[in-house]
Amino acid sequence: MARESKAPSERTRVKRLNERAVYDRQGIDAILDAQPLCHVGYVRDGQPFVTPTFQWREGDHVYFHGSSASQALRSARDADVCLTVSCFDGLVLARSGMHHSANYRAVMILGRPTLIEDPELKSTLVNNFIEGLFPGRVETLRPNNAQEIKATSVLSLPISEASAKVRTGNPVDDEEDYALPIWAGVIPLHTTVGTAHDDGRILDGVEVPDHVRNFGKNMF
Amino acid sequence: MARESKAPSERTRVKRLNERAVYDRQGIDAILDAQPLCHVGYVRDGQPFVTPTFQWREGDHVYFHGSSASQALRSARDADVCLTVSCFDGLVLARSGMHHSANYRAVMILGRPTLIEDPELKSTLVNNFIEGLFPGRVETLRPNNAQEIKATSVLSLPISEASAKVRTGNPVDDEEDYALPIWAGVIPLHTTVGTAHDDGRILDGVEVPDHVRNFGKNMF
Repeated sequence: MARESKAPSERTRVKRLNERAVYDRQGIDAILDAQPLCHVGYVRDGQPFVTPTFQWREGDHVYFHGSSASQALRSARDADVCLTVSCFDGLVLARSGMHHSANYRAVMILGRPTLIEDPELKSTLVNNFIEGLFPGRVETLRPNNAQEIKATSVLSLPISEASAKVRTGNPVDDEEDYALPIWAGVIPLHTTVGTAHDDGRILDGVEVPDHVRNFGKNMF
Repeated sequence: MARESKAPSERTRVKRLNERAVYDRQGIDAILDAQPLCHVGYVRDGQPFVTPTFQWREGDHVYFHGSSASQALRSARDADVCLTVSCFDGLVLARSGMHHSANYRAVMILGRPTLIEDPELKSTLVNNFIEGLFPGRVETLRPNNAQEIKATSVLSLPISEASAKVRTGNPVDDEEDYALPIWAGVIPLHTTVGTAHDDGRILDGVEVPDHVRNFGKNMF
C-alpha cells in the first residue's frame, strides 16, 4: 500500500512497517468517509483520555460534536488532540503465533480543534453530518432550535497533519514454515447493517424512508 | 443501564448521561471480551496519540502487545494511558437532528501499563490471546522462538480504574415531536464474520479447522 507522497510531519510518519503507510489525501479521505466512528485522544491534568465519538469530513476538515457540557469537547478545544479512525477488516492467521496479524485501515490526525462559534454554521454542519449519512433526511426533520444549537459544541480539525496505515492480504510466514501442515489465511470481518426498526411511536402512513432502507451501502 | 456500583475514581465517573454508566466488573468484562480491538491513548512530548491495537483480558488485567520497537508500546510503558474498547451497535434516528444518537458499548481503562519481562510468561500470554480467539489453535502452530519473543513487547494493565458507558434502545425525542409525521427508530450495526480464505499455500490434506469455522460466534 505504499504511495508516493510523504508524511506531513515526523510525528505522523509511519515508523514501523512503513510499506503500510498512506499519506495521500485520497487514501486518507476514503478511510474517513467509510467510518463515522472515531476515537479522540486528549489530555487532561496530564492524563490521556480516549473518547469514542463520530467524525464527519467536509473538504479539508473533519468535525466532531457533542454536548457543550462534555468534558471531552471542552478538553479538546484549542488543545493538542489525536483523532483516530479505524476499520477492522479481518484477522490474519499465520503458521506461528507471532506472525498472526490483523487487516485494517486506520487514519491518525493530529492538530488543535477549533470551536465553531457561529450558531447557523454549527447547525448547518450537524445537518450536513446527518445528510451525509442519510441523504434527504434533514428536510423531513423538525428544525434545530436555538437552545439545541447552543447546547451543542462542534469542533473543527484540519486534515493537515495526518497519516494512514493499511494492512491487507494474507499472512506473511517465515519461508520454512510454509512446509508445515497448518491452516493459514484470513477471516474477513464486515460491518453489516441490520434491519431498521421504528420506535413504536410512528404516525400512521409514515413509511420507512429510502435513506434508512439504503443506509450504509457505501460505508464501512 | 444504571447499575448499583460506583465509579472507581472521579476521573472515570461518567459525568454526562450517567444513566448510561456501568461500573461493575461483570458489565465491563463483557464488553472487553466482546471486542479485541482497542484504542490506546498515550502522550509523547505533550502530544496525545491514539493507536488501534488488540487487547485481551485475563482475570483482572488487560494485555496488549506489539513489536518491541513500537513507539506506542515504548511510550505507554509505565506511563499514564487510557485504553478504550468500543462496540458501535447502531444508529439512532430521532425526529430532530440534535436528538440523533448512537447505540454503543464502550469501556475506558486508565492506568500505567507494566512490561512483562519474563520471556516464558510473555509467550504464554500471547498464546492465550490466540487461544482465546481460536480455541485449539496454539497446539497446531510452530512454537514461538526466542527471537520472536524478544522482539515482542507485552504490556499489562490492571482493570482497577475503569468505567463503561452503554446506550441501547430507541431515540428519545421531545414529547411534542412525537406528533410529527417523521420516521424514527434504530438502524442496528453488526460485526459479521465473512468466509475464511486460506493463503493459497496450504499443504494437501490440511482442512479448515473448527476454530476458524466457528470464529466469532460469541463475539462483537
